[in-house]
Amino acid sequence: MILTVTLNTALDITYRVRSLRPHASHRVSEVTERPGGKGVNVARVLAALGHEVTVTGFTGGATGRVVREQLAAVAGVADALVPVSGTTRRTIAVVDDRTGDTTQLNEPGPVITPAEWSAFQDAYAGLLASASAVALCGSLPPGVPVGAYAGLVRTARSRGIPVLLDTSGEPLRRGVAARPDIIKPNADELAELTGSHEPLRATQDARRRGAGAVVASLGPEGLLAVTRDGRWRATPPLPVRGNPTGAGDSAVAGLLSGLADHLPWPDRLTRATALSAATAQSPVAGEFDRGVYEELLQRVAVSGEADAA
Amino acid sequence: MILTVTLNTALDITYRVRSLRPHASHRVSEVTERPGGKGVNVARVLAALGHEVTVTGFTGGATGRVVREQLAAVAGVADALVPVSGTTRRTIAVVDDRTGDTTQLNEPGPVITPAEWSAFQDAYAGLLASASAVALCGSLPPGVPVGAYAGLVRTARSRGIPVLLDTSGEPLRRGVAARPDIIKPNADELAELTGSHEPLRATQDARRRGAGAVVASLGPEGLLAVTRDGRWRATPPLPVRGNPTGAGDSAVAGLLSGLADHLPWPDRLTRATALSAATAQSPVAGEFDRGVYEELLQRVAVSGEADAA
Repeated sequence: MILTVTLNTALDITYRVRSLRPHASHRVSEVTERPGGKGVNVARVLAALGHEVTVTGFTGGATGRVVREQLAAVAGVADALVPVSGTTRRTIAVVDDRTGDTTQLNEPGPVITPAEWSAFQDAYAGLLASASAVALCGSLPPGVPVGAYAGLVRTARSRGIPVLLDTSGEPLRRGVAARPDIIKPNADELAELTGSHEPLRATQDARRRGAGAVVASLGPEGLLAVTRDGRWRATPPLPVRGNPTGAGDSAVAGLLSGLADHLPWPDRLTRATALSAATAQSPVAGEFDRGVYEELLQRVAVSGEADAA
Repeated sequence: MILTVTLNTALDITYRVRSLRPHASHRVSEVTERPGGKGVNVARVLAALGHEVTVTGFTGGATGRVVREQLAAVAGVADALVPVSGTTRRTIAVVDDRTGDTTQLNEPGPVITPAEWSAFQDAYAGLLASASAVALCGSLPPGVPVGAYAGLVRTARSRGIPVLLDTSGEPLRRGVAARPDIIKPNADELAELTGSHEPLRATQDARRRGAGAVVASLGPEGLLAVTRDGRWRATPPLPVRGNPTGAGDSAVAGLLSGLADHLPWPDRLTRATALSAATAQSPVAGEFDRGVYEELLQRVAVSGEADAA
């Protein structure tokens, strides 16, 4: 199975309001809820593609119960979340019906105790025994050491399990030094890591810092990958419009799916780009339309070259 | 015991953010939660004053479980909430640290089925057997008929139990016609009911529509009461500044407390005005400071006259 790690799982709540105005009172016309956090989103897409996937990370309190209840209803996703005494965070996306804009409110997440962090590391080591690949995704909740991902990368690598890291800031900086197989920064994360706003230069620099492959997401323009096999650029047929929520997580799922299916890099990038674009174009945030995905698979352009063997 | 009815109970969530800006992403620095809905707030204040109080209304889903867990921790409040298949609503108050302003997002509440509404009416009739007074508070959730409060008023009156109604709009209009003992509209609710923005005139008009007594809350200026015993105005020592959240619910609790203790109207109004002002001045929204309350009890001015017997 593919293992996805979401240390700061969430209950993602979406509200629709007529028009959001600070200092006013608003009647919410529509409420939707679903389990969230980047690794949970990645798992949902992987399961939809037919992969066997297990989610781990932390869960607790009343919102944690809702996350687990709703996860149980997602076919193909096994729940190996580790219980904690704190409460799983909520994220609230307030969609303004008038402008279509989204305003986001993110709770910080539960404080993880040293004993809980230790229990998680044990659970993670046990889950690796049956994992073919691992994705480490998203922010760290309070209490988890900033070097957490570096340690989880090393544990996976010591067992020869390919590991993808998708985070930002100092956890990314430290995690990269532990030599993950793949990182998937967006342009901002890449610039923060390397100091460069020039995508190719920054991507190459990030690889020199320790990542086996760097797949930079360039938003509507697709993906840029620098790997030990070569470098490629994958571009959707048209710049992608729509809701970017979850598009990055779908790209991660595409990369893992291609890795699990032993595809060469250009085909992995095609899959990731098509999934990402199909997610942005979906009317439901974070979901992807299978028909759009399958059509895009035929139309993503990949340019670049393999290095001489 | 005193019975408070909250058909649309809520989990009241307060978020602190640095500065709320539409279309931006915000990290919430502090999250607090407590059981809410007007009748629940009234019950909490009554219990703090030493009254035995029971809450009823609807509760359901994951937020309903949290409401019940937290209510169980409130000394003196008995939980007689009726379970429903829908999910208790959340209300979210986003406090802007920069301006101190609050932006409110209110979920609509669960849809109540006819069978659930019928089950509630049975439960209510049973609870009345041991009630010395009833308060009917707040908005109606979807599915509850607009004449709901009128029916609940009649049931209480047919058993000789004094009933206070605190709602707005059409449910208030219909409820008043069923002749509740007390209504406590604010200036906007009174104007909507009567068409008049002149407080004394509107209060007298509301009483002619069927209420035994009308206690109009005039915000920082205190209360205006027109009753069958006379008319009075109760004024706090200084116009009340602070957070009005819950101040109206504390006024309702003061009126019920004075009714239960068989106080004459001027003393009931003193209690309600002091509680309301002590709630507005509290640093915690909806709580009241006992010291401030007891000091204000000595300083509220009541003017007016009893009618000749």
